[in-house]
Amino acid sequence: MDGLSKETFAELLPLLDRLASFGADAAGGVTRLLYTPSWLEAQTFLAGRMRAAGLETRFDRAGNLYGRLEGSLPGAPAVLTGSHIDTVRCGGRYDGAYGIAAGLLALEGLKRAYGTPLRTLEVVSLCEEEGSRFPLAYWGSGNIAGVYRLEEDGGVADPAGVPLAKAMASAGFGRPEQPDCRRSDLGAYVELHIEQGVVLERTGRRIGLVETIVGQKRLALTVTGASGHAGTTPMGMRADALAGVAEMIAALEASALAAGEPLVATVGRLKTKPNTPNVIPGEARFTLDVRHDRSAELNRFCEETLARFAEIAARRGLALEVRSWLDTEPAPMHAGLTGLLENVCRGMNLPTRRMASGAGHDAQLFAPLCPSAMLFVPSRNGVSHSPEEYTAPEHLAEGAAALGACLYELAYREEWPL
Amino acid sequence: MDGLSKETFAELLPLLDRLASFGADAAGGVTRLLYTPSWLEAQTFLAGRMRAAGLETRFDRAGNLYGRLEGSLPGAPAVLTGSHIDTVRCGGRYDGAYGIAAGLLALEGLKRAYGTPLRTLEVVSLCEEEGSRFPLAYWGSGNIAGVYRLEEDGGVADPAGVPLAKAMASAGFGRPEQPDCRRSDLGAYVELHIEQGVVLERTGRRIGLVETIVGQKRLALTVTGASGHAGTTPMGMRADALAGVAEMIAALEASALAAGEPLVATVGRLKTKPNTPNVIPGEARFTLDVRHDRSAELNRFCEETLARFAEIAARRGLALEVRSWLDTEPAPMHAGLTGLLENVCRGMNLPTRRMASGAGHDAQLFAPLCPSAMLFVPSRNGVSHSPEEYTAPEHLAEGAAALGACLYELAYREEWPL
Repeated sequence: MDGLSKETFAELLPLLDRLASFGADAAGGVTRLLYTPSWLEAQTFLAGRMRAAGLETRFDRAGNLYGRLEGSLPGAPAVLTGSHIDTVRCGGRYDGAYGIAAGLLALEGLKRAYGTPLRTLEVVSLCEEEGSRFPLAYWGSGNIAGVYRLEEDGGVADPAGVPLAKAMASAGFGRPEQPDCRRSDLGAYVELHIEQGVVLERTGRRIGLVETIVGQKRLALTVTGASGHAGTTPMGMRADALAGVAEMIAALEASALAAGEPLVATVGRLKTKPNTPNVIPGEARFTLDVRHDRSAELNRFCEETLARFAEIAARRGLALEVRSWLDTEPAPMHAGLTGLLENVCRGMNLPTRRMASGAGHDAQLFAPLCPSAMLFVPSRNGVSHSPEEYTAPEHLAEGAAALGACLYELAYREEWPL
Repeated sequence: MDGLSKETFAELLPLLDRLASFGADAAGGVTRLLYTPSWLEAQTFLAGRMRAAGLETRFDRAGNLYGRLEGSLPGAPAVLTGSHIDTVRCGGRYDGAYGIAAGLLALEGLKRAYGTPLRTLEVVSLCEEEGSRFPLAYWGSGNIAGVYRLEEDGGVADPAGVPLAKAMASAGFGRPEQPDCRRSDLGAYVELHIEQGVVLERTGRRIGLVETIVGQKRLALTVTGASGHAGTTPMGMRADALAGVAEMIAALEASALAAGEPLVATVGRLKTKPNTPNVIPGEARFTLDVRHDRSAELNRFCEETLARFAEIAARRGLALEVRSWLDTEPAPMHAGLTGLLENVCRGMNLPTRRMASGAGHDAQLFAPLCPSAMLFVPSRNGVSHSPEEYTAPEHLAEGAAALGACLYELAYREEWPL
């Protein structure tokens, strides 16, 4: 391949600007939660843009959007690229959207430059990855992989109490006549994403090749004490749920620092009841997110943390309830496919670095289905899940070009390279 | 006085039941926030019940409701009793409502038994005391005392962003043609209230005589760090606002315990941003409520606490913003009026106890205007600001009878007793 022409990705920045307009929030970030109007507008816009690119589009039952370029080899495995269209609350404009936009333009460019591929090429805009609205991360890829089942997992509700099944139906999905989510025809999955960390920036490399995606545990915890009058309840007679949680968070932070990298532990959400200035909090609910690239260390840290939390609660006369809502093993990427990416980057003189991903990605859900790999581009200051998220245009273009070259190797070569 | 007949307060429990129906919430508590529909319904109901009792009713410009029994002595100071109609979120059914209901029935009974008083008797249903919706506690009595000015303090907003002036107007108040709130004609204010603490229960006394109401400081604090990805931001590179607040709360609790009674310090409200499980909190806002019956200790504790908070924030690279929104001095009650209450209780063979009030009360706003005093009845387990708030019927009746006897001494005796 002589490589795709420069024009191929000329629309990349405008396309990212357009996608960022769906769910643009007051804080300058993007808030595009699963099945909300802004989410639906973004998916609808992408479907139109895919059709304009000459791709055959379809939504599956969960709301994953595919753009398909049919291959000429009968029965050959399909080559899939893409990422997720949902965001966290007040998130950035590159997380997820970049991989979809680059994949769409790559397929458009490959079709224009090389015509019909031997193997079918598809770009997917996955409906949900973050788990920001419902406590079910990877809802899109999880349904494709069969980790979730649409019919059984619709009961969970968002913070406003809206059940997933109801939200899905209101967005027009979950109907039996819509295509089933499961895929068994995939030959490869390649996901392009921003790093969301500082490794590439600090080492001066342009492309990150992911060897492993860290394992994650996400827990929802409820601490229950006794609410009471802030003025007439002596300090020694209190069962203050928030004071208990404060001690837990302090203990968590200390032990996470002591454990050292790559372990990270975060309390991202906390709500107290009744949340009134002159009333002692009788209840506090919070989430715990713990990650590590080795299962044993991840499990040990979580067990020790929960034991510590239980001790704190018992000493204070508080009830502690723990519910696990996400538990993923560290996911190794496919060595052969990662090697192919490495060769492609070498051919383009792009300095690469093999690394672990501290963030979870849909690729870890595809890994059991087919050879899967990920390539990263640098994130300024490693900031993500924030309006400050930024990747330089040249870095965005390089990542897209590397993806395009990789998809060419997978879809247009007579010999299957894996 | 031979005392009021038993029938006088026969309606006390049904009246409290009825009042608890305005703003009854799902948790079994009462949520009746200033200027909300349930608040307005309760005030409207009380106005009707006051008229049925033969009292002349009026609302002032802030929404304080008065029931008046005109005295025969021209130019004599008015004798006022009552309490507040608003509640905290998910509060109890006695806090505030009890003093209004007992006062209303006492005036009705006195009129029936003794006819027109020498000095005007009034019962007031104060519009707001808790400061649960707007960061302005004692809004009702504060406007009567001139601590607040309706025209100038309407800018503050509730958590939903609704300005006080707008909420007041929507409830039908704040209009120039409505009576001004200020009072300069008061001869005495007597407030009957539940203790909201355990002193009476533990000492086996039936009536508490308040000598001092504790001073309070309420602060609104904002801690700002940097939000970021929970998976890719190493522990050592974080500016986690919530982790900083957790350390502050832990430090506060330890120093409050060390300071000993009667000091109490409470963080009752905490909100984080963006409040998403997989995002490091970039901002945390919380309230601090500190109380003591001596000014010097109260000020010293708050200064040391804020210095400690500033040190914690600086060490963590967090910004700390502090705003004071309530600052009341300890308020001594009137010795002569408290002595009158003590004599009345002795005459009724009710064992009393002189005590400080750890809770703030409207009486502290009236104290600068006229001789003011408070009497307490026991609270089971000292629980208040909670659906579990409870006072036994016989204790409720005793407190009401003592109030009625005191009002008789103030309004029907030729000689002014103070």
